[in-house]
Amino acid sequence: MALASLHDLFLDELKDAYHGEKQLLKALPRMAKAAQSSALKAAFTKHLRETEGQVQRLEQVFKNLGERAIGKRCKGIEGIVEEGKDIMEEEGSEAVIDAALIAAAQRVEHYEIASYGCLITYAGLLGNREAVRLLEQTLAEEEAADEALTALGERGINQAALAAGQDEDQE
Amino acid sequence: MALASLHDLFLDELKDAYHGEKQLLKALPRMAKAAQSSALKAAFTKHLRETEGQVQRLEQVFKNLGERAIGKRCKGIEGIVEEGKDIMEEEGSEAVIDAALIAAAQRVEHYEIASYGCLITYAGLLGNREAVRLLEQTLAEEEAADEALTALGERGINQAALAAGQDEDQE
Repeated sequence: MALASLHDLFLDELKDAYHGEKQLLKALPRMAKAAQSSALKAAFTKHLRETEGQVQRLEQVFKNLGERAIGKRCKGIEGIVEEGKDIMEEEGSEAVIDAALIAAAQRVEHYEIASYGCLITYAGLLGNREAVRLLEQTLAEEEAADEALTALGERGINQAALAAGQDEDQE
Repeated sequence: MALASLHDLFLDELKDAYHGEKQLLKALPRMAKAAQSSALKAAFTKHLRETEGQVQRLEQVFKNLGERAIGKRCKGIEGIVEEGKDIMEEEGSEAVIDAALIAAAQRVEHYEIASYGCLITYAGLLGNREAVRLLEQTLAEEEAADEALTALGERGINQAALAAGQDEDQE
């Protein structure tokens, strides 16, 4: 697909975001299952519900543009999700694996924050106010999810991970 | 590799970051070559120099831990770099491709911001002040690089991309 105009780029990035969110619909239940902390499980499940709404918002943006909602392989999210799978296959302390799952999820959130930030800029330049409104809702959810993960780490998971390894660490 | 302790996770994430930065040492010169805007070329070249320093800082952290500096395949950055390559192969308007390169680079920066944020947290918990100091320098550079890319978009590249497609857009 040619990038002849900002509209082309906007549509291309929308397809990338759509494919990314669809991948997360599959990854988040696995992450919730892998998490040991009940608070972390709840955070992943909450973000799964939000992601369902984010997919619907993207479908609304496609519809308003008169375009079919189709994804374009999002290699970025694919790679980050692969990393998350690798973590779930690791042997180790439950608290350390929870901390690693938080780190993996925060990479997803940051990737998406960058992605939605660009989409909102393009939508604004193209005068598409409805898209700006919808995508800003999603961006706010991604930022809140990132902050919630940081708080979960700070409120106990990182300390538990530290305690798990106290016998072995050389620090 | 088992994740038995926070030290294990710290080392695992350091190897991921090291592999990621090494990939960027190869990707940034290609991005600088592909950029049409001289300011964007300069931004990529500047960040290449910074990335060389970031690799050295990671090597210093490994050394202080008494560990060999080795990378572990970073599938996240790999996926994002692949996306960047796809953009460089696209046909289209120069300004639109420049805007797309900015978007791709900002995803890299955000991934790294999440990654170094976690590394600094772990280093702090492990009482490794020297690692905190080194990694905070890198985090500040990544954040500044992200802001510089946003400014380049706002200061003309996005507008040029918009002008490039004015004949075709249906917005």
